[in-house]
Amino acid sequence: MKIILVGASGDVGRAACDALSARHEIITAGRTSGDVRVDLASPESVVEMYRTTGPVDAVVSAAGEVEFARLNDMSVEKYRFGLENKALTQVGLVLAGLKTVREGGSFTLTSGILDRDPVLMGTGAAIANGALAGFVKSAAIDMPANRRINVVSPGLLEVSVEQYGAMFPGHELVSSRRVGLAYAKCVEGAITGQVVTVD
Amino acid sequence: MKIILVGASGDVGRAACDALSARHEIITAGRTSGDVRVDLASPESVVEMYRTTGPVDAVVSAAGEVEFARLNDMSVEKYRFGLENKALTQVGLVLAGLKTVREGGSFTLTSGILDRDPVLMGTGAAIANGALAGFVKSAAIDMPANRRINVVSPGLLEVSVEQYGAMFPGHELVSSRRVGLAYAKCVEGAITGQVVTVD
Repeated sequence: MKIILVGASGDVGRAACDALSARHEIITAGRTSGDVRVDLASPESVVEMYRTTGPVDAVVSAAGEVEFARLNDMSVEKYRFGLENKALTQVGLVLAGLKTVREGGSFTLTSGILDRDPVLMGTGAAIANGALAGFVKSAAIDMPANRRINVVSPGLLEVSVEQYGAMFPGHELVSSRRVGLAYAKCVEGAITGQVVTVD
Repeated sequence: MKIILVGASGDVGRAACDALSARHEIITAGRTSGDVRVDLASPESVVEMYRTTGPVDAVVSAAGEVEFARLNDMSVEKYRFGLENKALTQVGLVLAGLKTVREGGSFTLTSGILDRDPVLMGTGAAIANGALAGFVKSAAIDMPANRRINVVSPGLLEVSVEQYGAMFPGHELVSSRRVGLAYAKCVEGAITGQVVTVD
C-alpha cells in the first residue's frame, strides 16, 4: 500500500511508521520535516499535499496539539486551541482526502487516553479526544466508496515519559511496538468506526 | 435548591424543567425567552447572567446548535459551528460559573445520542457530543470545592419526532419524563464525571 503518514516525526508517528514501513510505501508528511511538508491548520496546504502525493491507499495522522492546564487555569480559548489543532485539523485531513484515498482505503487518526483515564491538566486533551471519537464513530457510516475510518487512542508511550510522565501518575506506559500494532490493525485490517485503545 | 436552567424553552429543557420545578426554584435562561436572557456565545453575557442570579446550587444547560449534513456536504467550518455552539458554549458556562455555583453544587450539560448511535447527517452533532463527554469525564476530577459535573445524552425525544424523526430511522424514541429523570439524577444525586444516557 501507499500510505501518507502525517506527524511522522513524533513519538506516536514513529511507532506507526515502524509498524508499517516494512510492508508499505510510506510518504511522511509534517510541518517541519518529512517527504512532503504540510500544515494541517491550512486547508490549502492539505490540498497541496494530496495533489503532490496523488492517490493513496491510506492516510494515517499522528498530529495534534492541545493546551495542558488545571481546570481553574483553562479558558474557552485554550479548549478551542485543542479542538482546532487536534480535532478539526484531523477532520479537515479526512474531508480533503476523501477523493485521494482509493476506494476501500482508510483514514486512521490519533486521539489519546485522557478522555477515558483523566489526569489533572488533561481536560484540553480530553475534549479533543472525545470530539475525535464522536467524529470517527459517526463518519464511518457515511464514508463514500467503502472507505474506512478509525482513531487510535494510545496511553502514554514509554518513549514519551520524560516529557509527559509527571502529568500521568500511576498510568501504565505503553510500548511503541503495541502502539504501532494499533495502526497496523486500522490500516491493514477491516474495522471501521472504532476507537482502538492501547492501554 | 436554586437552579439556573439554560435553554429551558427547547424540548430537552422543558423535560428538565418539568422534572425539577416541583421541588426547586428554577431560574430559566435563554437567548429569546426566560427569566434571564443569555447568549452562551458571548462570555460577557454569561458573566452578566451569573451576576444577575447570584449564587446557585446547580446549573443545567440544555442549549446547543449543530449543523446537520451528509459527510460529503460537511466542511471544517460546519464542524467548527457545532463545536463552538454546542461544546465550547457549554464549557464556557461551566468555567464562568465555577464561583457562582455553591460548594457541593453541580453542572449538568446536554449532549445527545449521535456519537454512540450514529445517523447519516449526524457527524456534526457527534463531534460536539464526543467533545462534551471527554470534557465532563476529565473536568470532574479537577472541579474545585466538591462541585460535580455530568452530561445527559438523550436519544430522540417523542416530542421532537416531527422536527427530527426523518433523520433517525429505527431509533427508539424516549419520553420527556425519562429525559427529565436523567437531569434529576445529575442535580439531586451525587454522581460526577458521568455521561448519563437515555436510550
